[in-house]
Amino acid sequence: MLIIMKPSATPQQIEAVIHAVQARGLTPHITHGIETTLITAVGEAHDPSLDSLELLDGVESVRQISQPFKLGSRQVHPENSVFPIDGFQVGGDDIIIIAGPCAVESRSQILETAQAVREAGANALRGGVFKPRTSPYSFQGLGEEGLEYLAEAREQTGMPVVVEIMSERQLSLMLKHVDVLQVGARNMQNFNLLRALGETRKSVLLKRGLSATIEELLMSAEYLLAGGNKQVILCERGIRTFETATRNTTDINAIPVLKNLTHLPVILDPSHATGHADYVPAIARAAIAAGADGLIVEVHPDPAHAVSDGRQSLKPEKFAEMVRQVKGIAEVLGRRVAPIKKPLTVGW
Amino acid sequence: MLIIMKPSATPQQIEAVIHAVQARGLTPHITHGIETTLITAVGEAHDPSLDSLELLDGVESVRQISQPFKLGSRQVHPENSVFPIDGFQVGGDDIIIIAGPCAVESRSQILETAQAVREAGANALRGGVFKPRTSPYSFQGLGEEGLEYLAEAREQTGMPVVVEIMSERQLSLMLKHVDVLQVGARNMQNFNLLRALGETRKSVLLKRGLSATIEELLMSAEYLLAGGNKQVILCERGIRTFETATRNTTDINAIPVLKNLTHLPVILDPSHATGHADYVPAIARAAIAAGADGLIVEVHPDPAHAVSDGRQSLKPEKFAEMVRQVKGIAEVLGRRVAPIKKPLTVGW
Amino acid sequence: MLIIMKPSATPQQIEAVIHAVQARGLTPHITHGIETTLITAVGEAHDPSLDSLELLDGVESVRQISQPFKLGSRQVHPENSVFPIDGFQVGGDDIIIIAGPCAVESRSQILETAQAVREAGANALRGGVFKPRTSPYSFQGLGEEGLEYLAEAREQTGMPVVVEIMSERQLSLMLKHVDVLQVGARNMQNFNLLRALGETRKSVLLKRGLSATIEELLMSAEYLLAGGNKQVILCERGIRTFETATRNTTDINAIPVLKNLTHLPVILDPSHATGHADYVPAIARAAIAAGADGLIVEVHPDPAHAVSDGRQSLKPEKFAEMVRQVKGIAEVLGRRVAPIKKPLTVGW
Amino acid sequence: MLIIMKPSATPQQIEAVIHAVQARGLTPHITHGIETTLITAVGEAHDPSLDSLELLDGVESVRQISQPFKLGSRQVHPENSVFPIDGFQVGGDDIIIIAGPCAVESRSQILETAQAVREAGANALRGGVFKPRTSPYSFQGLGEEGLEYLAEAREQTGMPVVVEIMSERQLSLMLKHVDVLQVGARNMQNFNLLRALGETRKSVLLKRGLSATIEELLMSAEYLLAGGNKQVILCERGIRTFETATRNTTDINAIPVLKNLTHLPVILDPSHATGHADYVPAIARAAIAAGADGLIVEVHPDPAHAVSDGRQSLKPEKFAEMVRQVKGIAEVLGRRVAPIKKPLTVGW
Repeated sequence: MLIIMKPSATPQQIEAVIHAVQARGLTPHITHGIETTLITAVGEAHDPSLDSLELLDGVESVRQISQPFKLGSRQVHPENSVFPIDGFQVGGDDIIIIAGPCAVESRSQILETAQAVREAGANALRGGVFKPRTSPYSFQGLGEEGLEYLAEAREQTGMPVVVEIMSERQLSLMLKHVDVLQVGARNMQNFNLLRALGETRKSVLLKRGLSATIEELLMSAEYLLAGGNKQVILCERGIRTFETATRNTTDINAIPVLKNLTHLPVILDPSHATGHADYVPAIARAAIAAGADGLIVEVHPDPAHAVSDGRQSLKPEKFAEMVRQVKGIAEVLGRRVAPIKKPLTVGW
Repeated sequence: MLIIMKPSATPQQIEAVIHAVQARGLTPHITHGIETTLITAVGEAHDPSLDSLELLDGVESVRQISQPFKLGSRQVHPENSVFPIDGFQVGGDDIIIIAGPCAVESRSQILETAQAVREAGANALRGGVFKPRTSPYSFQGLGEEGLEYLAEAREQTGMPVVVEIMSERQLSLMLKHVDVLQVGARNMQNFNLLRALGETRKSVLLKRGLSATIEELLMSAEYLLAGGNKQVILCERGIRTFETATRNTTDINAIPVLKNLTHLPVILDPSHATGHADYVPAIARAAIAAGADGLIVEVHPDPAHAVSDGRQSLKPEKFAEMVRQVKGIAEVLGRRVAPIKKPLTVGW
Repeated sequence: MLIIMKPSATPQQIEAVIHAVQARGLTPHITHGIETTLITAVGEAHDPSLDSLELLDGVESVRQISQPFKLGSRQVHPENSVFPIDGFQVGGDDIIIIAGPCAVESRSQILETAQAVREAGANALRGGVFKPRTSPYSFQGLGEEGLEYLAEAREQTGMPVVVEIMSERQLSLMLKHVDVLQVGARNMQNFNLLRALGETRKSVLLKRGLSATIEELLMSAEYLLAGGNKQVILCERGIRTFETATRNTTDINAIPVLKNLTHLPVILDPSHATGHADYVPAIARAAIAAGADGLIVEVHPDPAHAVSDGRQSLKPEKFAEMVRQVKGIAEVLGRRVAPIKKPLTVGW
Repeated sequence: MLIIMKPSATPQQIEAVIHAVQARGLTPHITHGIETTLITAVGEAHDPSLDSLELLDGVESVRQISQPFKLGSRQVHPENSVFPIDGFQVGGDDIIIIAGPCAVESRSQILETAQAVREAGANALRGGVFKPRTSPYSFQGLGEEGLEYLAEAREQTGMPVVVEIMSERQLSLMLKHVDVLQVGARNMQNFNLLRALGETRKSVLLKRGLSATIEELLMSAEYLLAGGNKQVILCERGIRTFETATRNTTDINAIPVLKNLTHLPVILDPSHATGHADYVPAIARAAIAAGADGLIVEVHPDPAHAVSDGRQSLKPEKFAEMVRQVKGIAEVLGRRVAPIKKPLTVGW
């Protein structure tokens, strides 16, 4: 913690800050500059209550120096975290592709989509059954019925399933049916949910909040890691800015920044990050080119009749083309898209 | 819903859109402009699945026209919503002031603060017992113990208490002890929590999310109202922008905009909206001048030793001075700060 | 300047940074923390080239400590800057009100508006003659003809005139006709223009850029002050955020923050800050309540037929009502709106 | 222009709007919905003064429908604009790479950098001689002396030079020495400068403003195109958001959006868009993967001693590695980096 004194601070005020630092069990170091005096508090890496030292007379500001995240930090754990999800590895050299509809709408819709994305090269299937909708009047998901259809799709295609969890109350149901629990952008700081997931040993796909900083995303991951769950995948999905030409602004910078700061795998969701199917392939390619470890993409057999997010869903043939381009870019960087672990079941 | 065709759209493409509108049970109206053709879909006020019409060939964009919120709209309910909270009225001519510490830290801290803010003119007491903290390593609140101290403070001062609820699981406990349930900024779109609160008949103080639009705030209120709970207070508490000189940017425009769009009471939290005690009185005054129906302010007897948010907490004497200024401004606008309903109990 | 080393930094890397600091003529101070080492460079208050030390091996980041603005800083000049504009004082206890149309459209329009705002209590007249328009196809202003109409309005009403300057090339023309030169938001970092204005001794009204930080606004003021022009008025006019319910987001926090950081007068433009006439009075009141030294407001005799910004222009009678409210709030804070220096010329 | 009436609008109010539309020479079309009435004004594609119709009684809001940019629109000109710059083509299949230091600092620095970037595969040389600096106390550029060094570098390497112009006053000097005139982010809406450049027939590299929307960027291009200058290159260079981990947020979405909206070439500046040399190659790769037509990159022989922007400048060897990766990605997309037109002069 660094305490910057005002140029007008008196020796008595400086002395009082020194005592306040010591009273918190820390060691103060003083640097007298030409304009101002700095006091560095050495000890406990990050104590938020030190912020309130800013209220002492003569203090200009108090600033944090060390990273507030620990378990997720690459400084603490320099090697990439690599862990398996039903047959393929996440976080290593291979790139993973998760695809499927925004929402499970019917048995036939999810089975058809699962087959199509599998054939196109996807590694895992996404599909929402509890939907966080801005409006209480919109379709809220099929619930448990949807989970059963997903289970059937998993059985047919061999793909693990990724499903969003919205509440701790859904946890026991989800644990039975789901391979990767997704925390949506709106729940990135639902700390009770994060704590509950930290106590499980299921993989968690943690999406960045709409206006969450990269540091806050890592702090939310810290809730999961602190509970002992080390299987955390981070996901950039676009942030909210002043630009309205797209639904969100893809923070492509977040890919290399996160890969630098943390050992956790980092993927990107080009569907939410753009909001328009026409722009999804370009941003999917950009993500892989920037160093992402994977993609999560919305695919629907008939986007114009999707109950939600149709505007940003790819048709299967567009998705297949996107996968081909992504494979080419992965090769340029010495990586590959994770191979499908086994052929599709014949005859379904 | 308005569908804007591309200038290059063919008659066949226009025809296809007309059929798609009709297939959804709506009536299309066509306007041929010089550059482009517009198709207006008349019927159901707001159907999000119409967005996906944007995927049809020849469509430039699809735009929503009518307000997506209904029960909260002043168009539907032109008069202000006014409702009582333990003796005083919210949403009418009177301005209410809620004050207290960020977190309940100890019995003596909350009793001392309650007395001080009551003497200064506050109408209700705030105090967190479950704290949403960015870091899992920070103080997370006293929990039920804190609720007991708040109950004691209420008994001594006669003030109703306002407490943040973070999870549906805390609801039964909260309903016993709390007068107003606060939904924090991070949970503004925790729809499961909103639905649970909509089923109660407790007043809810709904804080605007860090990057929520005014429309999204009203949609979250709609979850509460749709459940039958009409006692909803909206709270502007600063939004996230590029400016770092303050913790958040107070969206003071939101006050007159919300008063125009909705009949619900609107208050402002100058503590979170600025993040610095020095700026709180100025923004509290501005809120009332702009037409807010109240304030919620962090007050702590010893901010430099607060376990959280000390930097933005007022000392009781500064708070009392702020209340005096606010009273003056209320009078200029023909309003008043709600009177304290009964004198403080003597001798505690 | 503070240099934070990585936890993994070697003694040799630390040594290299110390040498690099010394090579720039500064004195390094070293603090060894538990996780990291800090090096403080003492000497020249702010040397941007020190940023590049971040490229040295082992360096985590480099941060600026002291304020980069000097002449505008309240640390350097604790007393408010107060200076006269044609009879009234700016920056002292009195609040000033500048009003008039977005653009001078015709002789009768500006004369009529001038009379109306004068009668309502305005101190100065605004009116654009060179208009910065997003579109090259929009009305670009009357140019010199407009300046002549303004001169006539000044003669009739006794009010000084405030006019936006867009280019150094307009300076000699402007100096003849104008009392206060306004630098618009889009030109806040047009440094050639700022330097040219810094060499004059005309008052300058410097508007904050759409996405300029408070610090950048003060750095642009520094260009003016460094040229020797001390008559600088700062103007908050709304910043660009994700919220689209209003044209801009009024950063009301900027008022107390600026009053704390600088001795220069600070005013607010509620017209651009909201973009809707309905919201202008509320935000004008909020500005004064928050401590602003004045207002600049768009007023038009017939907003529905204004060639620009009609949507945000007040009719004269609404403006007069706004002035009455502002006067009441000023009194609560022990201030007053500057009195009109002399009665209106009879008989025009 | 679409006029949305309030649900409560009376027939008289609707009638008045219809008359107001007709009074502007436009044809009104009326659609009666269930909740509201819409009036579409057909005629002149975009008349900003129609905005003020929002002030009429009973009007809820007025919205623009057609694109406000014309000459730059792909609707008007479906084919890509392709034009030559000293031997290579911009805007076609070839990707161009512009590289060089932030500022020309000395003869040896620019000559050395020019040779290095040329060898690495750059097509053009950048270098600032008039620098827009936030602080009046920072290095402001070598001015004409710098232009002479650039001329020498051009002669030695055969590369055209790209230089920022800050003021109309620098135009005649620039026209003599410079191949591409760059308009910096801070001047994107310096309309007087844009108009002056629109009258020349020099290529212009127009950088997106820090908080400019994509539409505003296209409107600024319209100033250039309307003057008859068709050689306009657009440049995404990062926008300002709440995220502080990087200097700016690269709006990678802007690449496919711009390629969709306009026929003009679109390049990206990964140096300003990230602010950190470590992140530049990743974002350069992403830009090409997303469909950009080129890059402009800061390269410095000794970034740790650069007078400006050292933190974000690549060393020549890192730049060469970046070019190799970019070439690989270009090939995946069926493109190539433009070949160097002739070998380097031997022996200098």
